[in-house]
Amino acid sequence: MPLDAKWFTEEAPEGGMAFSLKLSEKLHSEKTEFQTIDIYRTEKFGNLMVIDGFVMLTERDNFIYHEMMSHPVLYSHGDPKHIVIIGGGDCGTLREVLKHGSIESAVQIEIDERVTRLAETYFPELTESNHDLRAEFVFGDGIRWMAEAQPENLDVIIVDSTDPIGPAKGLFTEAFYRTCLNALSDRGLVVQQSESPLLHMEILSGMRKAMADAGFADVKTIQFPQPSYPSGWWSATMARKGAQIDSFREEDAASRNFDTRYYTPEVHKGAFAMPAFFVREFQ
Amino acid sequence: MPLDAKWFTEEAPEGGMAFSLKLSEKLHSEKTEFQTIDIYRTEKFGNLMVIDGFVMLTERDNFIYHEMMSHPVLYSHGDPKHIVIIGGGDCGTLREVLKHGSIESAVQIEIDERVTRLAETYFPELTESNHDLRAEFVFGDGIRWMAEAQPENLDVIIVDSTDPIGPAKGLFTEAFYRTCLNALSDRGLVVQQSESPLLHMEILSGMRKAMADAGFADVKTIQFPQPSYPSGWWSATMARKGAQIDSFREEDAASRNFDTRYYTPEVHKGAFAMPAFFVREFQ
Repeated sequence: MPLDAKWFTEEAPEGGMAFSLKLSEKLHSEKTEFQTIDIYRTEKFGNLMVIDGFVMLTERDNFIYHEMMSHPVLYSHGDPKHIVIIGGGDCGTLREVLKHGSIESAVQIEIDERVTRLAETYFPELTESNHDLRAEFVFGDGIRWMAEAQPENLDVIIVDSTDPIGPAKGLFTEAFYRTCLNALSDRGLVVQQSESPLLHMEILSGMRKAMADAGFADVKTIQFPQPSYPSGWWSATMARKGAQIDSFREEDAASRNFDTRYYTPEVHKGAFAMPAFFVREFQ
Repeated sequence: MPLDAKWFTEEAPEGGMAFSLKLSEKLHSEKTEFQTIDIYRTEKFGNLMVIDGFVMLTERDNFIYHEMMSHPVLYSHGDPKHIVIIGGGDCGTLREVLKHGSIESAVQIEIDERVTRLAETYFPELTESNHDLRAEFVFGDGIRWMAEAQPENLDVIIVDSTDPIGPAKGLFTEAFYRTCLNALSDRGLVVQQSESPLLHMEILSGMRKAMADAGFADVKTIQFPQPSYPSGWWSATMARKGAQIDSFREEDAASRNFDTRYYTPEVHKGAFAMPAFFVREFQ
């Protein structure tokens, strides 16, 4: 059945697959200094943001991604105070980070200010914590920011970027991970979205190797569903400076004083379970 | 971007979404007594079987579904000997079941013999255990078979059916679960595919309630990725007669003498982790 113009379709040629969402209305379209951003209202997934033809997020399912990019890494750190988010312009990750009472500062470095401005208009739920006094917004190049960062000053770095093409390519390199390692305090953690385990195992394995080569003491991958991303199955990879990633503050997670829709302490532990083909691939 | 005739597209109207696979070739098409079956070669997902327009399986990703429909329930039973599979005509679940040395008999009751015959031709990997002497094939109505089954004779029932429309509808009812309960031996288990947690929570909740109402002592849902099914996120629901589902034979699973591609003991435990919105929904 061919789909007509009432659908947004993202083809994933590497998977010989495509994912489509039925549209109600085009809300906005612009070409920024960096990319083309389109916003649609969909029939069943709420608002949809598309950048250069790729789904960035939908109102309906972004909660899984944003919760899994923030709570597992923050509850794996003993006392996270100073956080940096690279990318994450829609502010959904920032919102989750700021739910943690221990956080003293959260700096978001997004290259394209228009992503954040459009999120304020079309995804107001995600930007509801933007006036939190602990939040700081830098609109600029995350790679350069990290290269110039004060050493040993950050507890957690969250790399919430697009796929490793275009401006985000440099975020998937050993050179970048070395700057992260340098900027992290002792036992600090970095987490980065690491694509689909079904479609992009080569990228995932490459990231893991680059993180280890950069000098991180431990690297671990978590997995979770993300229906609006290619294959519906996504991952994030964590690396830790000077320690193993075995320090889950389970009691704190269980007694958290904020709502989540996907994350629970059991989900946290379950997300680290490695499917048999991961184990073989990562050996 | 509209997709042309070189794509197979399955629309999920309940989700306002569609999933497409790029095709190389149409291999077969027939109208059986029960349904229309199409077989395609895809560009990146190997062979694809479609029944009445719905993806049944692809060569590339069926391993996740078949492993998760069989190993978690079998390793949750103390000593599974006698198994029945309702549906499962492609024989992929049967193949996984027969990997367990404890199994003495595995009866597959598929309504449409053509599904099995076409699987033999186009998915030979899945049917490679069909000549195992422990396997028995019945081509008939699973609902009637279960209603007439000898009482207290089965250790595990696996309901590997299509969605709750058409002939499979009766498999999602309290009446059917009562016949399963009757056919199960003490501490026996049933497991059934239970749709997408994102799209079909109403079906999932309804099944859980019907299983509990039928008299099962415990009901638990597991989740796993299934990229070629709507939303890429799927579930299976287990119910146990006369006991809690807390009896994972972890050491046996860890020392299993067969290969898996997705299932591991860690995956087993992780799959039971309930996302926060499950917890709220199932309360």
